[in-house]
Amino acid sequence: MTKDKGKIDKLVEGIADGQRRALAQAITLIESTRSDHREDADRLLEQILPMSGKSIRIGISGVPGVGKSTFIESFGMHLIGKGFRVAVLAIDPSSQRTGGSILGDKTRMEILSRQEAAFIRPSPAGTTLGGVARRTREAMLLCEASGFDVILIETVGVGQSETAVAEMVDMFLLLLLPSGGDELQGIKKGIMELADMVVVNKADGDLAPAANRAAAEYHAALGLMRPSSPNWKPRVKKCSALNNEGIDEIWSAIEEFRTKLWESNEIPDKRVKQAVSWMWSEIKESLLLAFKDKPEIDKALEKVESEVISGKIAPATAARKLLNIFLKP
Amino acid sequence: MTKDKGKIDKLVEGIADGQRRALAQAITLIESTRSDHREDADRLLEQILPMSGKSIRIGISGVPGVGKSTFIESFGMHLIGKGFRVAVLAIDPSSQRTGGSILGDKTRMEILSRQEAAFIRPSPAGTTLGGVARRTREAMLLCEASGFDVILIETVGVGQSETAVAEMVDMFLLLLLPSGGDELQGIKKGIMELADMVVVNKADGDLAPAANRAAAEYHAALGLMRPSSPNWKPRVKKCSALNNEGIDEIWSAIEEFRTKLWESNEIPDKRVKQAVSWMWSEIKESLLLAFKDKPEIDKALEKVESEVISGKIAPATAARKLLNIFLKP
Repeated sequence: MTKDKGKIDKLVEGIADGQRRALAQAITLIESTRSDHREDADRLLEQILPMSGKSIRIGISGVPGVGKSTFIESFGMHLIGKGFRVAVLAIDPSSQRTGGSILGDKTRMEILSRQEAAFIRPSPAGTTLGGVARRTREAMLLCEASGFDVILIETVGVGQSETAVAEMVDMFLLLLLPSGGDELQGIKKGIMELADMVVVNKADGDLAPAANRAAAEYHAALGLMRPSSPNWKPRVKKCSALNNEGIDEIWSAIEEFRTKLWESNEIPDKRVKQAVSWMWSEIKESLLLAFKDKPEIDKALEKVESEVISGKIAPATAARKLLNIFLKP
Repeated sequence: MTKDKGKIDKLVEGIADGQRRALAQAITLIESTRSDHREDADRLLEQILPMSGKSIRIGISGVPGVGKSTFIESFGMHLIGKGFRVAVLAIDPSSQRTGGSILGDKTRMEILSRQEAAFIRPSPAGTTLGGVARRTREAMLLCEASGFDVILIETVGVGQSETAVAEMVDMFLLLLLPSGGDELQGIKKGIMELADMVVVNKADGDLAPAANRAAAEYHAALGLMRPSSPNWKPRVKKCSALNNEGIDEIWSAIEEFRTKLWESNEIPDKRVKQAVSWMWSEIKESLLLAFKDKPEIDKALEKVESEVISGKIAPATAARKLLNIFLKP
């Protein structure tokens, strides 16, 4: 992919036409870290932006073992049955460590992945969370331009990626196990407060009574938190993704959420705010990278930091020393 | 205060000697935004740093009306009665808007402020939260060098300042009213999770039964959250600051906290981490200020931001455009 105007135009055409090969190629382009690719990607994005924005964007998070794949498969098939096209983008922050990724595993969501109306794509390994999340956000826009009605963005729920995902979706859904308070203690701080909906999965068989208790506990916990929207109080739903039970009620609640928050103009407002705050996050992250990359900083940092650790200089003094080095022309 | 080595040495001497006039002058110096003062302040800090670190640093937060002043007065007098010297530093983020500050009001903590063993100082108005908090942190170090045993850092509990304060203290204490769940919903997200101890104030007279119920609710809410220390589970205590009831139990719990977390090396570790993360916060904030201050950025920003808002360009593209302008030599 070189600086080829014709090639970009062709990709845009293919995306607009709903061709999955064009979509896949476009995502590969935006994932590239080569600077000439980045310029192509920017031109591509500029062209597809007017076509984006028509889907409902849903973040789905939950710890390993909660049954995310089964849920997304069941939920996705349900939506396809209703005539929707569904894209699933998965962020796995651990993939930078493990090299390969559980999320890239072909055996996940086996039935869903074979559907013409579904598109499943894991986010690749990246050096920064912001980098991974940026590419996911842009992939989401590409999927929208390609005509997908529902975009599911999946995270593993153990890292910082949830906050980044909440910053790019309309609605945040947290999958939990029927284990109640004990599980809440294990959930990373603040994650619960991001949730517009909590879904207790595995509410079947032996676990049904536990699921009821857990749902009541989660409901009480949510009641103690400040709702993030004036038009929506977080809901707690139960389901058995394995037995396809409760999926329809979840989708109904999502539709209610969408209707209420579009009518009150909250979703469009939120998206504009998200875009602006995204720009600033990018700026901050890039500034810090530029700072750390400067050879003079690299040379001075270790010594200054150790002086802070040993209590020889105050943190603000240290920062000012380094800043002076960085900003020196 | 000019670049006068003798003057700084004298200030250091006065601080080491516990003279409140020297302490007050030193705090005024670190609060100054003049760059020559800043250099003096850095030299001063470097000299007093080895004398700092011996106090217990306690953050105290609570919404207006919870009785913070009465609590601090009652708590402070109790500590003085035990032979301790107590410094109170107050951060009021609203003071930059109102000009004057409720926290500067001379009628607050009337009895405490007249004690020789007490030192009370509000943080002045500032343009950034980071700036205010940095000065508070440095004022805390000066108070320590001046021999204060307990430093109380007070915030009004409605803004972002709590996180900044939690980043500079050993222990975070949240004052709450006897109104239970309703109040929790009004508390800013995440504040509850910062608390090492929750104190239900006004547990007296008619409100005593409500205070019992509220304490139980707060206890349940804390139980659902992940404790931030492996050696300490957040406690809930009741008190009536007005009637001086429950103050001793609160101090006992604080002493237990201090003993456990010093013995497990958690406080020293935390302080080192705080210092390093403080340095990085300063660096990030200063980078962003330098970015925004650059005339070329100032010129381009509005246009680029409006293109992001109208959906003409992607946030990452916008960020890259601006970064290129900033980093151009």
